[in-house]
Amino acid sequence: MPSAFKSVAVVGKNDAASLPDILDQLAGLLRRRGLAVHMDPPTAAASPVKPESVGELAEISARADLCLVVGGDGTLLSCARVMADRGVPLAGINLGRLGFLTDIPADQLEAGVAAILDGEFQPEQRILLAGTVKRDGEVIFSAPAMNDVVVSRGASGSMIEFAVTVDGEFIYTLRADGLIVATPTGSTAYALSAGGPILHPALQAIALVPISPHTLSNRPVAIRNTSRVEITLVRGNEARANFDVQAFCQLEPSDVVSVSSAPRPATLLHPRGYRYFSMLRQKLRWSERTA
Amino acid sequence: MPSAFKSVAVVGKNDAASLPDILDQLAGLLRRRGLAVHMDPPTAAASPVKPESVGELAEISARADLCLVVGGDGTLLSCARVMADRGVPLAGINLGRLGFLTDIPADQLEAGVAAILDGEFQPEQRILLAGTVKRDGEVIFSAPAMNDVVVSRGASGSMIEFAVTVDGEFIYTLRADGLIVATPTGSTAYALSAGGPILHPALQAIALVPISPHTLSNRPVAIRNTSRVEITLVRGNEARANFDVQAFCQLEPSDVVSVSSAPRPATLLHPRGYRYFSMLRQKLRWSERTA
Amino acid sequence: MPSAFKSVAVVGKNDAASLPDILDQLAGLLRRRGLAVHMDPPTAAASPVKPESVGELAEISARADLCLVVGGDGTLLSCARVMADRGVPLAGINLGRLGFLTDIPADQLEAGVAAILDGEFQPEQRILLAGTVKRDGEVIFSAPAMNDVVVSRGASGSMIEFAVTVDGEFIYTLRADGLIVATPTGSTAYALSAGGPILHPALQAIALVPISPHTLSNRPVAIRNTSRVEITLVRGNEARANFDVQAFCQLEPSDVVSVSSAPRPATLLHPRGYRYFSMLRQKLRWSERTA
Amino acid sequence: MPSAFKSVAVVGKNDAASLPDILDQLAGLLRRRGLAVHMDPPTAAASPVKPESVGELAEISARADLCLVVGGDGTLLSCARVMADRGVPLAGINLGRLGFLTDIPADQLEAGVAAILDGEFQPEQRILLAGTVKRDGEVIFSAPAMNDVVVSRGASGSMIEFAVTVDGEFIYTLRADGLIVATPTGSTAYALSAGGPILHPALQAIALVPISPHTLSNRPVAIRNTSRVEITLVRGNEARANFDVQAFCQLEPSDVVSVSSAPRPATLLHPRGYRYFSMLRQKLRWSERTA
Repeated sequence: MPSAFKSVAVVGKNDAASLPDILDQLAGLLRRRGLAVHMDPPTAAASPVKPESVGELAEISARADLCLVVGGDGTLLSCARVMADRGVPLAGINLGRLGFLTDIPADQLEAGVAAILDGEFQPEQRILLAGTVKRDGEVIFSAPAMNDVVVSRGASGSMIEFAVTVDGEFIYTLRADGLIVATPTGSTAYALSAGGPILHPALQAIALVPISPHTLSNRPVAIRNTSRVEITLVRGNEARANFDVQAFCQLEPSDVVSVSSAPRPATLLHPRGYRYFSMLRQKLRWSERTA
Repeated sequence: MPSAFKSVAVVGKNDAASLPDILDQLAGLLRRRGLAVHMDPPTAAASPVKPESVGELAEISARADLCLVVGGDGTLLSCARVMADRGVPLAGINLGRLGFLTDIPADQLEAGVAAILDGEFQPEQRILLAGTVKRDGEVIFSAPAMNDVVVSRGASGSMIEFAVTVDGEFIYTLRADGLIVATPTGSTAYALSAGGPILHPALQAIALVPISPHTLSNRPVAIRNTSRVEITLVRGNEARANFDVQAFCQLEPSDVVSVSSAPRPATLLHPRGYRYFSMLRQKLRWSERTA
Repeated sequence: MPSAFKSVAVVGKNDAASLPDILDQLAGLLRRRGLAVHMDPPTAAASPVKPESVGELAEISARADLCLVVGGDGTLLSCARVMADRGVPLAGINLGRLGFLTDIPADQLEAGVAAILDGEFQPEQRILLAGTVKRDGEVIFSAPAMNDVVVSRGASGSMIEFAVTVDGEFIYTLRADGLIVATPTGSTAYALSAGGPILHPALQAIALVPISPHTLSNRPVAIRNTSRVEITLVRGNEARANFDVQAFCQLEPSDVVSVSSAPRPATLLHPRGYRYFSMLRQKLRWSERTA
Repeated sequence: MPSAFKSVAVVGKNDAASLPDILDQLAGLLRRRGLAVHMDPPTAAASPVKPESVGELAEISARADLCLVVGGDGTLLSCARVMADRGVPLAGINLGRLGFLTDIPADQLEAGVAAILDGEFQPEQRILLAGTVKRDGEVIFSAPAMNDVVVSRGASGSMIEFAVTVDGEFIYTLRADGLIVATPTGSTAYALSAGGPILHPALQAIALVPISPHTLSNRPVAIRNTSRVEITLVRGNEARANFDVQAFCQLEPSDVVSVSSAPRPATLLHPRGYRYFSMLRQKLRWSERTA
């Protein structure tokens, strides 16, 4: 059966002890199918099999039509932020526990990856956010986020104060530890810990979740993902804008953090039979159907 | 200037002391513009001016192309559940404090209503829910809801247990005081008290908000409003399905409460300059913009 | 080794399939030690071994110096409400999963009960509440509660309104589904589901936990357990005062539910090595110490 | 009438525009009664009237038998942390809105302070915490706290991980933004924003409130204030221990933050008629008694 893909980016989190074995197994499987394999430098360094090419994520995203991620949700997140831009779909092999995003268990790698190569998968689109920081009207920083853009206090422990608008409409001024702007994907990450709602991935929405707000009636708000959210820092030392906890920008008062949907979503390839709520139920230990 | 409407249903909450005066003022204004006025029996009884016709809400909804509601959010809600079906838009004159839905203050009735009759308004669509209760496969009850369909325990105080599916996919079995299925409109009502998120009215979503769930990780979930939610009662005496706290059906184990979007939304007519978040900020006492 | 006790009340929840076997084993063990065994009628009916006496809980509490409860937390709760009054200590054998209160696993019954009879236990006092309902100044109902006294709405689904005082000091008027007055024991039951804090059993405190309060700033409050809480129903059909979900009184507007500490606490006998937080960690699935 | 006090420490927050006038008025009032006035350097710099002595808070706490604080809750907090140690009672004159702690309005300064000097006040004791940070078994930092000791993440935005014990008993390992150990006084400050319960000041308790915990069942816990809480940092860059957001210590993995009640409480002097819940109701906008 011909593979649905020709050229595969393989990216592995480099501090897992079992990584070389998994990469060996994975690269062997891809080679036997005649597929080109590309790796980023840390993955290549850990891999017993030499790939066709080595390059930064952005480079290999240009050569691949599939990205296989070995690791946890964080690893997949960091790949998706790059791959989405090129439209390269991703599938995740989790090395430890079931992840929210990585749903092929390492011990079922052969069958799981083979199925995906055979076109036996359920694609799912996940929106990304595009965030920028403007100072004196100029963009000084920009980054994508798959989970969330977080404006938050620094180490000092003092609350920060900021004003929030949605599509130019003023919502509130908030004194809080911060504000999380989360995608549906991010709604089960930090935003959930901060009291936010779970947004189903098919919902075209983003959530604004205040972190420890001073005013108790400042509750999470979900809006359309076509909206532009702007957060203007009013007061606060060491405040930061964080993007998936993978990139950040130090903020000064009057800086404006602007967040909207990224032009292209990420595409996740799930095994057939994947069900969002089933995964969630397992991760959050919700009750099973009674006998 | 010709009126944008020809025939107006006027409905007033009948226990407000100022109601007759307001109705007098309102009916006079409509008459001077040559508009036909229709009232339901309690409103007609309270009104010094006789309307063109008197009938139940469903009847006058067939004759009116606008419904003016005098009272609070509850009154508007009960009208909207009927008017939506006929596509009759609604505007609310609040007798007391600013409402979430009724945004013409009684003391600005003349100007506020005149503007609407002149076509100076912002229309806003609000989805409704259509709920049914099935027993042994047969529908034994059905009702619309503009705020929420709530499955909840009875007076006994014991938690109930129920299984929830979305579009046929099993989500969880829950032991709780109940579950609120809320529209964006309802997200600022009971669902908010129970810990649910605020859903912007433009968001095509409904929220599933557990009431005092036994499992602490059972958090509110927002899904697309095109989804069908089914709640099967597993265990519980005196459980009920409540529709906007205006209609209800007693439930027995194995009964299935099925909820989906109603075919037609309600249309609210707001004064020009109405802004959703501005209203919310005032109602929830969120902080104003700082100087 | 002489037993620390002479006369034992044995009470078993009567719908567990394994109950007769467990009772047989338990009564045999007690008889071999020469101890008198007393049962309530349902337990005696399920027991293959005939007890020395059969009587209602209140009766056998007068004859026993120890109460062994076979069942879940609810069974222990109903016994403790009676036994506390006579100062009879209790130990619980759980038939199913670990309970918050019943901590001898059924499969370790022999060793667990033997240890207690040998005086090898950790006693722990748990406060009870004494609640009354007054109408027109007269007490129309009174009952103890080990978990909580709950004033709550009926089946109608409408919020109720009530005024709360602590030691005569007015706290607030609340519109809500209800109010939970919880002991530390009850703080891990219904009150926890409603968003209340966990109160360590050694803390001389009770918690006032609003259920779905209309005003979002009405947060749980913990006060000294020497305080008297009075809840006056202002508005609400079918409201009820519930005591451990085992006894209740229908309320009418102006009724006053008065709650204070009961004069005598219940005494639980735990196996040596029992640790409150260890039990809690297991029940709530908190994270274990990392390697 | 003789004053209940002889020697008064006056401390004012130095960035309020009205401070010099208030200090002038206050110092005049004290002088007319023949009382000695002591100030810290910033207050003396702002005061038109020269005090009997100028010194750091710790110095003037040794000479004063009353401390009058002009400012907000934060100013009173910073004084109380020093004055408590010497048993000097405090009263607060708030320059802006009603505070949780400062309850003499500036525009009633004359009458309010006169009453206190005449002995017309309600004393209230508030516990303080004593916190230390140990590294490799040695104390490297110690500070008191009237509101809270907070172990929290730094600016990086990554959760930290720490293990918590109470009186040597292991509670849990937590991944979170941090943990707040709050007094009843602090329970209405940061801890309330993070979802903690309100602890009545007369309750001998402290609250452990997780900040955005990863595990959703990690709920606030209230324990006796005679307990010792130890928090061992397991993982986290830039983590900090914060004391009332007024002092802090940078933490490294394996550092132990140890918190227990300070030996001496602070004593607040409230105007006669002060009622805790009345203040709280006003601050949190709880509903008043209905007509």
